[in-house]
Amino acid sequence: MLPPLPEVISGLEKIYQAGTVTNMGPLHNELESRLKARLRASNLVLFNNGTLALTAALNALQLPPGSEVITTPFSFAATTHAIVAAGLIPVFADVEPTFFTIDPQSVRQKITSRTSCILAVHVYGFPCFVEELGRIAMQSKLRVVYDAAHAFGVEVHGQPIASYGDANVFSFHATKLFNSIEGGCATVSDPALKDRLKNYRNFGILSEERVASVGLNGKMSEVHALFGLLNLPLLETEMNRRAAVREAYVAELRDCPQIVIPREGDHVLSSRQYFPIRVLKRRDYVYKRLKEFNVFSRRYFFPLISDFECYSYPGLSAGLPVAQQAAREVLCLPFYGDLINGAASRIGRLVREILCEPQGETG
Amino acid sequence: MLPPLPEVISGLEKIYQAGTVTNMGPLHNELESRLKARLRASNLVLFNNGTLALTAALNALQLPPGSEVITTPFSFAATTHAIVAAGLIPVFADVEPTFFTIDPQSVRQKITSRTSCILAVHVYGFPCFVEELGRIAMQSKLRVVYDAAHAFGVEVHGQPIASYGDANVFSFHATKLFNSIEGGCATVSDPALKDRLKNYRNFGILSEERVASVGLNGKMSEVHALFGLLNLPLLETEMNRRAAVREAYVAELRDCPQIVIPREGDHVLSSRQYFPIRVLKRRDYVYKRLKEFNVFSRRYFFPLISDFECYSYPGLSAGLPVAQQAAREVLCLPFYGDLINGAASRIGRLVREILCEPQGETG
Repeated sequence: MLPPLPEVISGLEKIYQAGTVTNMGPLHNELESRLKARLRASNLVLFNNGTLALTAALNALQLPPGSEVITTPFSFAATTHAIVAAGLIPVFADVEPTFFTIDPQSVRQKITSRTSCILAVHVYGFPCFVEELGRIAMQSKLRVVYDAAHAFGVEVHGQPIASYGDANVFSFHATKLFNSIEGGCATVSDPALKDRLKNYRNFGILSEERVASVGLNGKMSEVHALFGLLNLPLLETEMNRRAAVREAYVAELRDCPQIVIPREGDHVLSSRQYFPIRVLKRRDYVYKRLKEFNVFSRRYFFPLISDFECYSYPGLSAGLPVAQQAAREVLCLPFYGDLINGAASRIGRLVREILCEPQGETG
Repeated sequence: MLPPLPEVISGLEKIYQAGTVTNMGPLHNELESRLKARLRASNLVLFNNGTLALTAALNALQLPPGSEVITTPFSFAATTHAIVAAGLIPVFADVEPTFFTIDPQSVRQKITSRTSCILAVHVYGFPCFVEELGRIAMQSKLRVVYDAAHAFGVEVHGQPIASYGDANVFSFHATKLFNSIEGGCATVSDPALKDRLKNYRNFGILSEERVASVGLNGKMSEVHALFGLLNLPLLETEMNRRAAVREAYVAELRDCPQIVIPREGDHVLSSRQYFPIRVLKRRDYVYKRLKEFNVFSRRYFFPLISDFECYSYPGLSAGLPVAQQAAREVLCLPFYGDLINGAASRIGRLVREILCEPQGETG
């Protein structure tokens, strides 16, 4: 999703007049404050991408170096990479079967004396069991960070998703519903964490003469901030269109016995970012056949992070049966507003037809 | 330095037509290959900023975790932060007094059995003692990484600066002569290192089904790459203008006994990025008085990195007398092509006049 070019051009003219192109310029600060309002966050710090925002959030919590962070293997690689980049050890818990978010029961089983934090993912925007994870954290004195890369605008019982946990991290990458080409942010309730995030983003620089902490370059440029600002007002329309696309898919697929469509309860305001289905049999065959019809679905997330070469060491990847099954079954169908006029229905029908094809050697 | 707006607009139109805004798009790849030619590097990998490029370079060398990297305290904070971000321990060596680059003699003294690497800085574009550092590295089986953030286009005896060491890292931040708003790159001679850098930049992703190593998001967007591409052809003119600015400064300041102007030998092709002088007495007074005349010089680098709160622990910051003196004396005067018509001469005269002012309580 890109804003109209004439608006970008007029924004660039203003950037040229102001003469500031990066280092927390006026557009950067405006986007930061607009997102804070949009996500109803107490504190929000913009970053150049979501991965660095996640690394910064883990860093800001000042967890003991080398302590364990319990996380989900059913996510994008960046979730676990950020743990390692922050000098911490990932420990995988299993997910629950309906919404694929981390299973609180499995989290309890993975807690040891070395555990310092839970890093859960609102995968596809489906909210984690935030209340139960909060209780576990309280009981075991752990911090909770949510990777909310998929969960822009999600609310639970009217509460913004950013109101749960110690930190929430959002991604504004070009593939996201709300994007600034590259970008991300962290939201935190504790103002002390906000200060640490801001320091981390700018090399730990406090003033011309003081550098108090280790930091990197996490600055979003004025040009990227401009794209973010121009994209924000386009969100509502696109979300409504996607709601209709979803309805079209559901109408085609709901009676198909080989397909399960996860659906948030009415207490959840959806992010409208993904349309994941579970294909109980022959998911890879459907994926491949769709590609032959130039329909590009995604086996997102396959393989599990715990099966990546860099993380598949003994002990770490064991005992994750539900996540393994999810990785085998989930398929994300194309999901954007332009599919509104019949295209989603056609793709849905195509999926049904493929599932009726005789089971050959590839099936 | 910004490219003409009409060229940016026409570039954006092409980006909109192509529909790719990030993730190693066509402009990204074109910039990568043009820079490779410009810097005469065997392998070049673009990044979203120089700090992440430096972290990635240290990471790609696969140094033993927790091993020591000998580096200079006379640099921008990012140099040392990257060492820590890569899970390594910084050890400061002193600099030499003429060009402020790391002193090979001091490096030798700091080598222990835990040392794995030397991270030297071509500060202000002044080349390090590359031959001697290369010998030390060979003798002690160490790797050498150069922070070449200031050294775009520098050559030594006709050899490109990128041809020394295991890796060179350049910064394309907006404040640099060549900039892509935010950006940077790493150059390496070993193709295996190039592959590791590319993997690190993109979450360690090898293919749809393989993630082999830990990585982060180091991707430069198409929009930032566009600014880089448009800025490249403007370099030569700006460098020539800066050469004239430098001459104007030198004409005013060369006979001033309180000022020393470092100058590369004729065997060095200069980067024309900074105009640093040493003010032997009352540097801070000159800095403050210039500010009162709306002339913004920079005490770059003061304080030393070894005096930052996060690095000033016993042992680490001791025995750096030459660097301490440099931090007390160096002043970077404003240095850009637009000062060509008399402004540099006026600033030079102003500096001389300030140095003749009676020494008051602030002196």
